[in-house]
Amino acid sequence: MSHNSFGHLFRVTTWGESHGPALGCVIDGCPSLVEITEEEIQYFMDRRKPGQNKYTTQRREPDQVKILSGTFEGKTTGTPISLMIENVDQRSKDYGDIAEKYRPGHADFTYQTKYGIRDYRGGGRSSARETAARVAAGAIARKVLGPDVKIQGYLTQIGAHKIDCSRFDAAEIENNPFWCPDPVTADLWADYLDGIRKDGSSVGAVIEVVASGVQAGLGAPIYGKLDSDLAGAMMTINAVKGVEIGEGFSAAALTGETNADEMHAGNEKGPRFSSNHAGGILGGISTGQDIVVRFAVKPTSSILKPRSTITKSGEETEIVTKGRHDPCVGIRAVPVGEAMMACVLADHLLRHRGQQG
Amino acid sequence: MSHNSFGHLFRVTTWGESHGPALGCVIDGCPSLVEITEEEIQYFMDRRKPGQNKYTTQRREPDQVKILSGTFEGKTTGTPISLMIENVDQRSKDYGDIAEKYRPGHADFTYQTKYGIRDYRGGGRSSARETAARVAAGAIARKVLGPDVKIQGYLTQIGAHKIDCSRFDAAEIENNPFWCPDPVTADLWADYLDGIRKDGSSVGAVIEVVASGVQAGLGAPIYGKLDSDLAGAMMTINAVKGVEIGEGFSAAALTGETNADEMHAGNEKGPRFSSNHAGGILGGISTGQDIVVRFAVKPTSSILKPRSTITKSGEETEIVTKGRHDPCVGIRAVPVGEAMMACVLADHLLRHRGQQG
Amino acid sequence: MSHNSFGHLFRVTTWGESHGPALGCVIDGCPSLVEITEEEIQYFMDRRKPGQNKYTTQRREPDQVKILSGTFEGKTTGTPISLMIENVDQRSKDYGDIAEKYRPGHADFTYQTKYGIRDYRGGGRSSARETAARVAAGAIARKVLGPDVKIQGYLTQIGAHKIDCSRFDAAEIENNPFWCPDPVTADLWADYLDGIRKDGSSVGAVIEVVASGVQAGLGAPIYGKLDSDLAGAMMTINAVKGVEIGEGFSAAALTGETNADEMHAGNEKGPRFSSNHAGGILGGISTGQDIVVRFAVKPTSSILKPRSTITKSGEETEIVTKGRHDPCVGIRAVPVGEAMMACVLADHLLRHRGQQG
Amino acid sequence: MSHNSFGHLFRVTTWGESHGPALGCVIDGCPSLVEITEEEIQYFMDRRKPGQNKYTTQRREPDQVKILSGTFEGKTTGTPISLMIENVDQRSKDYGDIAEKYRPGHADFTYQTKYGIRDYRGGGRSSARETAARVAAGAIARKVLGPDVKIQGYLTQIGAHKIDCSRFDAAEIENNPFWCPDPVTADLWADYLDGIRKDGSSVGAVIEVVASGVQAGLGAPIYGKLDSDLAGAMMTINAVKGVEIGEGFSAAALTGETNADEMHAGNEKGPRFSSNHAGGILGGISTGQDIVVRFAVKPTSSILKPRSTITKSGEETEIVTKGRHDPCVGIRAVPVGEAMMACVLADHLLRHRGQQG
Repeated sequence: MSHNSFGHLFRVTTWGESHGPALGCVIDGCPSLVEITEEEIQYFMDRRKPGQNKYTTQRREPDQVKILSGTFEGKTTGTPISLMIENVDQRSKDYGDIAEKYRPGHADFTYQTKYGIRDYRGGGRSSARETAARVAAGAIARKVLGPDVKIQGYLTQIGAHKIDCSRFDAAEIENNPFWCPDPVTADLWADYLDGIRKDGSSVGAVIEVVASGVQAGLGAPIYGKLDSDLAGAMMTINAVKGVEIGEGFSAAALTGETNADEMHAGNEKGPRFSSNHAGGILGGISTGQDIVVRFAVKPTSSILKPRSTITKSGEETEIVTKGRHDPCVGIRAVPVGEAMMACVLADHLLRHRGQQG
Repeated sequence: MSHNSFGHLFRVTTWGESHGPALGCVIDGCPSLVEITEEEIQYFMDRRKPGQNKYTTQRREPDQVKILSGTFEGKTTGTPISLMIENVDQRSKDYGDIAEKYRPGHADFTYQTKYGIRDYRGGGRSSARETAARVAAGAIARKVLGPDVKIQGYLTQIGAHKIDCSRFDAAEIENNPFWCPDPVTADLWADYLDGIRKDGSSVGAVIEVVASGVQAGLGAPIYGKLDSDLAGAMMTINAVKGVEIGEGFSAAALTGETNADEMHAGNEKGPRFSSNHAGGILGGISTGQDIVVRFAVKPTSSILKPRSTITKSGEETEIVTKGRHDPCVGIRAVPVGEAMMACVLADHLLRHRGQQG
Repeated sequence: MSHNSFGHLFRVTTWGESHGPALGCVIDGCPSLVEITEEEIQYFMDRRKPGQNKYTTQRREPDQVKILSGTFEGKTTGTPISLMIENVDQRSKDYGDIAEKYRPGHADFTYQTKYGIRDYRGGGRSSARETAARVAAGAIARKVLGPDVKIQGYLTQIGAHKIDCSRFDAAEIENNPFWCPDPVTADLWADYLDGIRKDGSSVGAVIEVVASGVQAGLGAPIYGKLDSDLAGAMMTINAVKGVEIGEGFSAAALTGETNADEMHAGNEKGPRFSSNHAGGILGGISTGQDIVVRFAVKPTSSILKPRSTITKSGEETEIVTKGRHDPCVGIRAVPVGEAMMACVLADHLLRHRGQQG
Repeated sequence: MSHNSFGHLFRVTTWGESHGPALGCVIDGCPSLVEITEEEIQYFMDRRKPGQNKYTTQRREPDQVKILSGTFEGKTTGTPISLMIENVDQRSKDYGDIAEKYRPGHADFTYQTKYGIRDYRGGGRSSARETAARVAAGAIARKVLGPDVKIQGYLTQIGAHKIDCSRFDAAEIENNPFWCPDPVTADLWADYLDGIRKDGSSVGAVIEVVASGVQAGLGAPIYGKLDSDLAGAMMTINAVKGVEIGEGFSAAALTGETNADEMHAGNEKGPRFSSNHAGGILGGISTGQDIVVRFAVKPTSSILKPRSTITKSGEETEIVTKGRHDPCVGIRAVPVGEAMMACVLADHLLRHRGQQG
């Protein structure tokens, strides 16, 4: 058992605080002979890193990843892979006020209550900076899964504004700062978020992550269900409040004949399904269809508007969280959600072949 | 690692198939000196058991639980508690057709693909009968949590019909066969489900489970988050396709100033929060407020309407699933959701005091 | 984490007390399509069961194993295998005295101190009856390993009397009640143990378990070492006080040039080693040679001689442990040691192919 | 599950190769508010570090430990503690020959067979340098255990030369380079090892580690036995081939009346035992007496004498392992054995209070 690890056979343990000297992770159980370089990992680090446009925090972190162990001559050796990212732009003075006051919506109160101490600088361990380590791990997980498995995340909603699925165009996702597959909505979000940002406010989002090319048979019955692990994994991302697989909450309103995906004769890769309400998972095990996961991110709790709160000693006060923050943390959650998908699938790939050969 | 266990310190391993001689669970790590009797467990078994009204499967199972180990003179001894429930009313002949054909929406295809074999009788291991063992474990988890922690589940939606929260009355929950806290909606659901049942169809539902009296400080940062474990746990329940904590998916549309629950000076139990959008969890750790989890259950895939599918050998065919089924499996998911909440909380209580004393 | 489970991918959880209604285990993670019957398991149960000769406890237990789940039409399905053995010959009245007094050398005092309660009847959970469940699990583990892996245990020492290795004859092992590979020593032990038994005393033993036909490459570096798991596994057997791999403690007195097994060109199965001081494991990973484990069992603490002890309330007293006991529990530890070897190897086989395919 | 982690609630994951840029560990689950500084850890690092006298490897490593996360203002915060030790004195050119040839007694062959690749420089992951990370973790574990628990290791045998227990003097242990509690034997060992070293040979050793002040009640029945975890932990140390608790293998030759430690009325800390054959553990649970573990270390396999072996491609050859090596690795195993004892006890302390409060 471990509070800061996830996965079983492809097992990732992360460490580090927002304003410590560095953060990182150890990946244990990675198969040997997987070709991986720092550059390949860095590609994914750069997709997540802050300060790339006005819609994300202005903290400037190069997020340069270093491989400290577990590879030899460009290949994994089967031993633990230690990855480290140094923190460069901490500016701890920005956070003086939060040493004594609890920020509403943040983990300040709960950490202090549980541990009797907290590294308040930048949120310490509860900062979203921890997700840099996940993205690094996810890059290796993708290599374990192989080139046939494609994982793509994107936003489907910011605030109350949802994309129009009829305009879905995967090619657009990388063309705007919002990972938005609908260019019309992307423009709308740009204006909307400008207003939110200028107002010192923040807003939530919904992210969808799709994995295609996943073989049927990954997952396990009951408590080792693939969807259970995906739900748990996505819920570990900062600010996530809900997770859905396939039809998700909408399935409640469907009838059995609409919801159950009919099957037809297919090819050597598996049957053909007439629909994918299941989101690629039946009974906790992958069907071979696209695996579709959605998760909701709450609005950033660090805002410029004064809010009522209490001090560590229990006195009423107000707080305004200055610092550098994302008006919509959901945007930067896209590469993180992809990484979690990759890690969960890699783990289940190893688990499957462990049990079934 | 274990595919059929959940929890870490309060660890439950379930076993058994729908049509085998029995099913059960082993609970490892339960503290000693917890007073528990078969009668106390049976109370919760009876809340879940089938055949109690026309809205649930007509399979007649007494679901009589036996304690085989781990207690002595009415108290737990700290050693593994083995609980067994014998299957009585299997009627395996009902299921002849599904030996060869895959039922859409069911795990038939994925189990067969993964394992190359499946116990098709009544769905085997993927049957919701497995949840009887969870309810038994949950009864013991409640005793570990103590009398101050109250756990209550109820339905908030069947099909497209949601309850009206302004009529919420906890006293009504046990007064109708739907665990519905809104008596007006309960009547509506009765009519609606009659139609669904006569039509040989099925429909989904949304269940909410609330735990009150939970101390602040349970949970852990990052991958041991209380909400992550709750999401994963609820997603292991048969047919669940989505999980939310507190505001859930609605949080996406809120602004930071609306969503973050303001704090005020409270009493010795903790601060007073002006709202509970967080669902009682911040940064993965309980706040002391009510813990609020919702999950969506898809419509039963076993329906009387013919559906296109394929045989084990890949040929196209049709299937009608006769047998005895729930028109809305969400109803019987209520005691199961409560049990999972209890087990996750008990596990985190032990984990918390393990680390923090 | 689990106090009563062992293994990771081939994971066994045992339950049950000496004088409860039954005991058993749940095996999770077993591959599907392994052919197994109750009769095959029973063969190994019968090798361990008590009362077969005057050198083991006279408790009469048929130790009849029942498969409650996890198989279908004679094959495993990949779901948890639940095995149960009913207790038949408890005679709890024999144990009245030990409710109040701690037996020296037994777990009475430590269980009471840890848990504040104990099932004192026959030792409760700390009774060697628990090992029946291990033997059942081991029977399935052997099937997972396949017919090329042979596991054979035998005694090499009872009291101070060691076998003469020059007379080692594997064919003799099943020809005497001591699993003794040296017929001359077997006769000596018979006389010696007759004396011990008549004297109301007991004596220790050393058991060696050898696995042949194990492929090179099982195990893992550092904390997943095959020898670490074997040592931990053997040390979980009741009364075991020491474990050795290969040369074991004798290696301390050797020089590097004597101890390191030289390698020579071999065949497709691997190199030829000039010796096997390593006991088949180098760096925690199997070499393809015989895996050789030895463990020491202390003398049964239940003896007919009066011993000084204290009561639960701390008063000085004397105790004589009547009941039915083994003069040398090491004898019945042979099938248990074999079972643990089988379970550890099966687990590592699955772990290896999980990571390395 | 994790190949490179040990412990459950006090969980240590190590990483790093002998000739990589650094090595280290992540400690997850450490209680908060434990006061710890780099200097306190460094004290233990210095006891293990190489090159301190002519009896250990001449590799010069400062083994300077850095705390990268998990503490704040000199106290642990309950979040993962990342510790890093940079490698300084690699001299990789020394090891050119072993890229192609397998060193007998080393893990070269098994790593290559398992993983199809290995970092041969200095043994890569299988190097005893990994134990530096354990010692760092052990320093923190000691702080978790508190000042009442004392852990002391020492050598009792080098080659065939055992200490004379009648001359045992704990004060002597730090007075010679062998952690030898018997000054006469220390002198003998000095001469003996000089000869071994000049001869280019090596020799094994036996180490005893004693923990005093450990409360009764730590450990768990069956597979969570304290002695099982200690045995498994010690067996993970490089070159260890045997582990004993208390009387160990000698218990085989004892009778029940000699071996079982009689109990007498004691004080508030527990009963008084007339002896400690049990080594402080009964039924897997601590008795409150000294916990006594012994382990045997084989002779260093890297020796200057030519040995027959094969190349990676299977051809017969000879090898002489130059490099810088310990003539008796058992000496440097003392601080490592102490660290493992500390980590296992800290883990069981947390596990005990998790279950029992």
